[in-house]
Amino acid sequence: MIYLDHAAATPVGSRVLEAMEPYFLRDFFNPSAAYLPAKKVAADYEKAKGSIAHAIGAKTSDIIITAGATEANNLAFTSLALDGSCLYLTIEHDSVRKIAEQHNGQGIKVLSNGVIDLDDLKTKITDSTELISVALVNNEIGVIQPLAEIAAIIREIKIDRLKRGIKKQLLLHSDASQALNLLDINVARLGTDLLTLNAAKVYGPKGVGALYVSHDARLKPLTYGGGQENGLRSGTENVPSVIGFAKAVELAKEHLNGNRKKYASWRKILLSELQGYELINKKHVLDNFVVLCYNGLDAERLIYLLEDREVYVSTGAACAASKGQKSHVLKAIGLSDEQIAGSLRLTFGEANNEEQIHEAAQIINEVVTNEKRRLGR
Amino acid sequence: MIYLDHAAATPVGSRVLEAMEPYFLRDFFNPSAAYLPAKKVAADYEKAKGSIAHAIGAKTSDIIITAGATEANNLAFTSLALDGSCLYLTIEHDSVRKIAEQHNGQGIKVLSNGVIDLDDLKTKITDSTELISVALVNNEIGVIQPLAEIAAIIREIKIDRLKRGIKKQLLLHSDASQALNLLDINVARLGTDLLTLNAAKVYGPKGVGALYVSHDARLKPLTYGGGQENGLRSGTENVPSVIGFAKAVELAKEHLNGNRKKYASWRKILLSELQGYELINKKHVLDNFVVLCYNGLDAERLIYLLEDREVYVSTGAACAASKGQKSHVLKAIGLSDEQIAGSLRLTFGEANNEEQIHEAAQIINEVVTNEKRRLGR
Repeated sequence: MIYLDHAAATPVGSRVLEAMEPYFLRDFFNPSAAYLPAKKVAADYEKAKGSIAHAIGAKTSDIIITAGATEANNLAFTSLALDGSCLYLTIEHDSVRKIAEQHNGQGIKVLSNGVIDLDDLKTKITDSTELISVALVNNEIGVIQPLAEIAAIIREIKIDRLKRGIKKQLLLHSDASQALNLLDINVARLGTDLLTLNAAKVYGPKGVGALYVSHDARLKPLTYGGGQENGLRSGTENVPSVIGFAKAVELAKEHLNGNRKKYASWRKILLSELQGYELINKKHVLDNFVVLCYNGLDAERLIYLLEDREVYVSTGAACAASKGQKSHVLKAIGLSDEQIAGSLRLTFGEANNEEQIHEAAQIINEVVTNEKRRLGR
Repeated sequence: MIYLDHAAATPVGSRVLEAMEPYFLRDFFNPSAAYLPAKKVAADYEKAKGSIAHAIGAKTSDIIITAGATEANNLAFTSLALDGSCLYLTIEHDSVRKIAEQHNGQGIKVLSNGVIDLDDLKTKITDSTELISVALVNNEIGVIQPLAEIAAIIREIKIDRLKRGIKKQLLLHSDASQALNLLDINVARLGTDLLTLNAAKVYGPKGVGALYVSHDARLKPLTYGGGQENGLRSGTENVPSVIGFAKAVELAKEHLNGNRKKYASWRKILLSELQGYELINKKHVLDNFVVLCYNGLDAERLIYLLEDREVYVSTGAACAASKGQKSHVLKAIGLSDEQIAGSLRLTFGEANNEEQIHEAAQIINEVVTNEKRRLGR
């Protein structure tokens, strides 16, 4: 099996699972209980949150644990007042787009390379804008956005608002779900007020994520109850998953540079050994994302043919693909319907080795050649 | 260690963890992905939801997976229209009370035995009432509510509304988090439209729960995104946890009668061997809940003294206790402040055996005797 869909899901690391296990069976106590073994669990939980916070240059109290990136993204949008408006990058994941649409959000354009159109951003920010949401790395094409530049623009607007006595908050939110494996994230350096993290994309367990919330940002709870997570996210703490999340983040940080080099070399191998493709994501791209277009071929069919050879790739976001939707991301960067129909996303990761990359290139070439022959091209 | 706080948290069963493990490492795929191994995971996930559904007499499509009971309870309240009003039992858990308060909900009184005051319920239902929330088993005193009787009252009101041409929906929601271990739950027999389940109270993993939603009930999403869980609860499915949840539910069903007998006999042992207490929860009670009042003593202090002897008990809901709040449940059933201050909750479960129950009774007696001596009583 050659799994090339790490952007859709990552296996849980064996050391991550090892870290989680004691908290299922032995240290299972409710962290809110009054007796010592429960208080020890509460302390371990806080420590885990602390190491997630530390990894992005934040404090423990800035981290709100959620059930994943979708909930974290939705929680970020609770910062909007009833009359507040929001902007989001047109290529955002559905978990940002759909909640932004609920708030009548306006889309910010991207250039043909997938990078934010800063002029369009500047044009669209008005005095009622309270939230701007731009993912650090796009989940379909792996393009890295210049968050620090966006933050600088926002800072200027804030100064101008201050001068004019406008008190509305203006927050920068970024979904960094795909980024933690390969980018050294620091919230102060990026200038984000809200940042989404996702355990399931960094070899941690599914069903857990986090929202970094700067102390300036004012959010509302999505759910009410026992008052956990600074009152923003009630419910008994998911201790084993957060312990696993912290371990996954720690390992990601530890292997950041090594992985970046490794994936960059694999990307080169793929691009040199594959034949007859058009490269879609050329620059400002996370090293483990390769998006290829086979003009005139049907990528859905290629996925099934590759599946027969035990090579697993995708056409884009799994949740969108399963509904047969055309990629709004590829459309936004100006691809034609035919190009979109022929586009494959390959994302590598820890389930791979270099030999597999060579083998995948060979298998994909064979499948594409056979398919072209069948179609008489 | 003698753990007598199973209402706060249960250890994950070893067979539950065993069922989960393959889905962390091997079957980690995103259920929405297009290739076969992912589709197998999606099928396993659906099957797990099916067995949760089956356990309460429902269909797979009626089950919305959530991150736990708090989210499920909050999701139930999305059934309210902007002008709709709701009722809730005054002794409900914070995850119902706090969201009900957000909707200006009115509390329904309980009798001194903790059972719903049906006359008060009838008085408070008006033509604007859309939702009534009554937990099947209370989390602090283990009192079982007569849901079928409540459902019968609601049915009559619905018929009357129909006659008068009032189209407002009227739903019965029940948080059954504490109940699944010892009661044979069937949504049709109980007459509930919405029912909350919680894996973490039935030896399943933390961070996962479910809301049963009858096909009549109209809910709104708490979060927006990829459209999973019938569009009501977006986010990549938490496969391992749901697999574990289903196994836990299956085991709970399997051992229902055996556990009920066992816990009933342990309850008898405790009540006959303990000395100098007043029993708070006498009738209509889940067999593993024992709430005792030691008049004139401080239960918080007893917890610490018992902790020294490695006996772990609580004063009530962990999340409320940790904030030093006086139990609103014990207050609602008419206990004085002094009685509330002297009340302990003992909840037994699979971490116990009969020997431990005898031992716990002896240790509690000793601790109480010493404490009375210290206070000169």
